[in-house]
Amino acid sequence: MTTVIPTSPSTGTTVDLGPAVALSCRECGNRVALGPFYACTECFGPLEVAYEFTTSGEALREQIEAGPQNIWRYAPLLPVPANIADTPNINPGSTKLVRADNLARELGMKTLWVKDDSGNPTHSFKDRVVAVALAAARELGFTVLACPSTGNLANAVAAAAARAGIRSVVFVPSNLEQQKILTTAAYGGTLIAVEGNYDDINRLAGEIAGEQEDWAFVNVNVRPYYAEGSKTLGYEVAEQLGWRLPQQVVVPIASGAQLVKIDKGFQELVSLGLVDEAPYKVFGAQATGCNPVSTAFKQGHDFIQPVRPDTIAKSLAIGNPADGPYVLDVVNRTGGAIEDVTDEEVIEGIKLLARTEGIFAETAGGVTVATLKKLLASGQLDPNEETVIFNTGDGLKTLDAIAHVVGPSATIAPTLSAFEATGLA
Amino acid sequence: MTTVIPTSPSTGTTVDLGPAVALSCRECGNRVALGPFYACTECFGPLEVAYEFTTSGEALREQIEAGPQNIWRYAPLLPVPANIADTPNINPGSTKLVRADNLARELGMKTLWVKDDSGNPTHSFKDRVVAVALAAARELGFTVLACPSTGNLANAVAAAAARAGIRSVVFVPSNLEQQKILTTAAYGGTLIAVEGNYDDINRLAGEIAGEQEDWAFVNVNVRPYYAEGSKTLGYEVAEQLGWRLPQQVVVPIASGAQLVKIDKGFQELVSLGLVDEAPYKVFGAQATGCNPVSTAFKQGHDFIQPVRPDTIAKSLAIGNPADGPYVLDVVNRTGGAIEDVTDEEVIEGIKLLARTEGIFAETAGGVTVATLKKLLASGQLDPNEETVIFNTGDGLKTLDAIAHVVGPSATIAPTLSAFEATGLA
Repeated sequence: MTTVIPTSPSTGTTVDLGPAVALSCRECGNRVALGPFYACTECFGPLEVAYEFTTSGEALREQIEAGPQNIWRYAPLLPVPANIADTPNINPGSTKLVRADNLARELGMKTLWVKDDSGNPTHSFKDRVVAVALAAARELGFTVLACPSTGNLANAVAAAAARAGIRSVVFVPSNLEQQKILTTAAYGGTLIAVEGNYDDINRLAGEIAGEQEDWAFVNVNVRPYYAEGSKTLGYEVAEQLGWRLPQQVVVPIASGAQLVKIDKGFQELVSLGLVDEAPYKVFGAQATGCNPVSTAFKQGHDFIQPVRPDTIAKSLAIGNPADGPYVLDVVNRTGGAIEDVTDEEVIEGIKLLARTEGIFAETAGGVTVATLKKLLASGQLDPNEETVIFNTGDGLKTLDAIAHVVGPSATIAPTLSAFEATGLA
Repeated sequence: MTTVIPTSPSTGTTVDLGPAVALSCRECGNRVALGPFYACTECFGPLEVAYEFTTSGEALREQIEAGPQNIWRYAPLLPVPANIADTPNINPGSTKLVRADNLARELGMKTLWVKDDSGNPTHSFKDRVVAVALAAARELGFTVLACPSTGNLANAVAAAAARAGIRSVVFVPSNLEQQKILTTAAYGGTLIAVEGNYDDINRLAGEIAGEQEDWAFVNVNVRPYYAEGSKTLGYEVAEQLGWRLPQQVVVPIASGAQLVKIDKGFQELVSLGLVDEAPYKVFGAQATGCNPVSTAFKQGHDFIQPVRPDTIAKSLAIGNPADGPYVLDVVNRTGGAIEDVTDEEVIEGIKLLARTEGIFAETAGGVTVATLKKLLASGQLDPNEETVIFNTGDGLKTLDAIAHVVGPSATIAPTLSAFEATGLA
């Protein structure tokens, strides 16, 4: 993360982002007014949204339960205008919390759930964060939605902007798989293929953000709002369990923001009286080919040593994760742990989840399932405590990862005798 | 459809399929007991499920509204046991009804909705019909879930069986696109690649159904139950509109069962007092490369002349649609129409829906959008009446169809000056 404060469009009006009242520095606590800022002017630390919630307890719960079947039921807890559900949105969220008895049985666990976020409109959790970023961007006066991305985020931004009726500009590596290019290009926004790796593209996006004052780069200049979208994963899990917290959660780590925000969501529900306070442990999952947070956890560090990613779990391949230190805080505070798994284990994880629960996850989901298995084997995760794992994307988008390990059981001529000869009857 | 009555497993117990009381012939009305039958023993006509509903009006509405957010909220109206929601299921349904104001504006329409069934667990409406077929198959004593398929159905069967903890056997053409093979194979069931076209595979499936008495072929020997799953599309649209019927619907036609069952769902809601009786028109959509029902409609026939399909809309490419005559009945009775569109129009339809509403449809959805446009142009569909179109699948599964028409706006070096030189800033 750079510390440049980008220019911002002058709105000339009061910003209405619901219960959000300021941005506050996660390091020094310094507060600034709501705006397109992401770094503290005092200490260069990252900013996050600060709230003054006006409702709590039973009244809030009733308000949420009467809301729409998407993330806007939690609008009173998000940096969005109160009427957000009435604006054109792709309305992510309210994805399934699947009771995973078959998988639990195979792993010797008592109660296991899969929060399956592949059910979102563009089939990843990115729809949540983009929806919140879009709401804030509109309120802050931006007219273009942009991002650097290698996949899921590109899809989510292009789709959300199309429905909102605003322009999108998405930057992707020119060597990206054809299927990811097509899936983003279909929405008809501006798609720029860049001859470089993700770091090159991210740097270019930062430069353009400084030049184009009407452009909201969702994960750059409106990042504090964007990141809050992941709180809704925590809210939904708690509500779907009947307004209580699970005892253990396993969350994949890319930038780390998702894990941190799920914890933040749980904490808010406790402080607002929506769930009873109860101990829970947060576990993190990485691929061994990009395991800077897992390494720091195991070595007892409170800082992250960047790595150069080399894993099939491309949606988790952030070598210098911005929220890494905060992930360590959450995991250590709650008594969880962080593990990493090989690409072979990732593939086995994808297959295991698909075979037992009929959920076909992208590689990030394979990382999470494989990490769950490893944490059970090491005794760090308790098989008898209620556990929720997060599947954040769809296997349809990472077919290449399994192309060499799955296929037809047999290929036959179209006759009954040919079928019977296979021995598969 | 053949008229062979396959063997069936002997259950030895009473079959509990909720409000379903018999199978009745759609031609002669002859009734037979609930079982794995699909053809009338008197006249060889197709069988369908007959019900005795025990609840209606306000009581039924309250029961539905208190139910789960999936098709099982309509269990009192389906051929499934009352406790179906408690059994392991992939729980399809409750997909979004999207208010399509942007698309309506482009087409000069007043009120347009898209029922977006790509939000189902395996991203097509097939999850609905398979879920009902699975419920009936289990109750009838079958132990294996099977199907011939070229895509969406294969995914749905493999996923549903995995979660139910039973074996699946899926037959696909060996020349199917690699991505469709992988997506089905991921779930770990038996996948048989057959050297032949869909007709060859369908015939083989019928032969195997006669041999394997424990196998339920969802679209063969338990087809009457399977087809009922599409009624839930009609129920959901009416409930999502606030318990009323739309004035016009546009539905894609493959076998035609979906269109017929949406109408059946509407009719049931009227007769049960859940919606007010009101006139509505049902329109059908086909690809010109497989337009036997559209042709029959235009020629004023009440029978279907089979065709050899040649279209990119493969999920609609059924040259001899079993429900074709019933589609004609519904469309003529309600005052609707049937149109067909070229592959070029299909692609334009996909792009139009994605660009305006952020919904990336498979080719079948492109057929529906393009047909809507054509029906408006010809004056057959009224732009001022409230209209619902059905998107039944996901663009991620038919990427090949758009590969030659969408792509990056520009490819650049990773520098600010290279970006500015594109003129896209």
